[in-house]
Amino acid sequence: MTGRNPMTGGNPMTGGNPMTAAVAPDGGSPALRRRGPGRPRDPVDTKGAIVAAARAEFARHGYDKTTIRGIARSAGVDPALVYHYFGSKQNVLVAVLDLPVNPAEVVSGLLEAGLDQIGERLVRLLLSIWDDPDGRTRFLAVIRTAMTNDAVADVMREFFAREVLAKIIKEIGAPDPELRASLAFSHVMGMAMARYVLRLEPLASASPDEIARLLGPTLERYLLPGPPA
Amino acid sequence: MTGRNPMTGGNPMTGGNPMTAAVAPDGGSPALRRRGPGRPRDPVDTKGAIVAAARAEFARHGYDKTTIRGIARSAGVDPALVYHYFGSKQNVLVAVLDLPVNPAEVVSGLLEAGLDQIGERLVRLLLSIWDDPDGRTRFLAVIRTAMTNDAVADVMREFFAREVLAKIIKEIGAPDPELRASLAFSHVMGMAMARYVLRLEPLASASPDEIARLLGPTLERYLLPGPPA
Repeated sequence: MTGRNPMTGGNPMTGGNPMTAAVAPDGGSPALRRRGPGRPRDPVDTKGAIVAAARAEFARHGYDKTTIRGIARSAGVDPALVYHYFGSKQNVLVAVLDLPVNPAEVVSGLLEAGLDQIGERLVRLLLSIWDDPDGRTRFLAVIRTAMTNDAVADVMREFFAREVLAKIIKEIGAPDPELRASLAFSHVMGMAMARYVLRLEPLASASPDEIARLLGPTLERYLLPGPPA
Repeated sequence: MTGRNPMTGGNPMTGGNPMTAAVAPDGGSPALRRRGPGRPRDPVDTKGAIVAAARAEFARHGYDKTTIRGIARSAGVDPALVYHYFGSKQNVLVAVLDLPVNPAEVVSGLLEAGLDQIGERLVRLLLSIWDDPDGRTRFLAVIRTAMTNDAVADVMREFFAREVLAKIIKEIGAPDPELRASLAFSHVMGMAMARYVLRLEPLASASPDEIARLLGPTLERYLLPGPPA
């Protein structure tokens, strides 16, 4: 896909390719260096090396085909150490993408509390993360990268489809659960784009309550059984 | 806002600044060259020069504060010539952004046909434009640029708020018309992101009919009078 910049006639959005540069060390920490005998490795370095190796693995193989074993091999550590630090492949990706929260855990938490007003609760929860400047910055970095980089878009798509939407879909008793879940996802993403990137008023300045009141029932119409009236 | 790339640790998305580079000629045509006496100017060059000048004016002043007069002055032509070629400031921006259609005209056309099933009709119309490879390429170029470039985001926001949403809002008899219109806009944008950028299934492969059937009523819930049930 092209990325021509309509305001300049040039393309300001290329200049780095994570498929080739993906093994770059994370934050300058010495990555991918095997531990020599008698030379204890700083745990921060080890964690950084795992994240750097995982970044390369995800970019190369996508989310589905990346394994804890492959990440460990690439980082030169035992798989047990990856589990020790991160617990799951899901959490490794959350670290690679530097997400403020694990989306899969957010969704699990919401579903555990039942389906009642799940749309409004989801909106309130996401806005509480994204209205925070740090959470917003990290969220936007991922979105912007996914917009211009197919490898990142692929990883995000696989992750959301498998870890987030699949959980929601199981709870949906309506027809077309996959399509409904992807529409709910797209509405939340579009709201975030309009509020934080385009800063479209009054959405940019509206209170979380106002947005939840209007957007919540839409999400419930998609997510809950019942005719899409 | 930052644009750190979470997959590489670097930032592949900077490298051009339309606020400084915005006077670059359009497609290599000789822009901003005043016509000397006895040297007739190619109409294509004149149009290109106006588009190049307009690009700089929009980037510098935003959509609202850019005038046909200012564009003409910057291009070294008479304002009448800008009207002759483009008819309105709106159409000049459509040319600068290289949009496949004029969004304001699309919305006017939809509203003229009444409010009945306006949500489904809007979705079908947009998908007919974006499912076409050329329309999709040009649409995505604008969206990607707006995601990473504040000047382009500002111009898009002002344009949509003034030329597109304002028209819709006038037709809405419900409370919070501005918020409703911006939510409808954000839902359509999010759907396009998920379908064309993330290629999230089944939204990416769903037929326009399937999407219109589910998304249309949501848009009507936002746009038409009545309780947001």
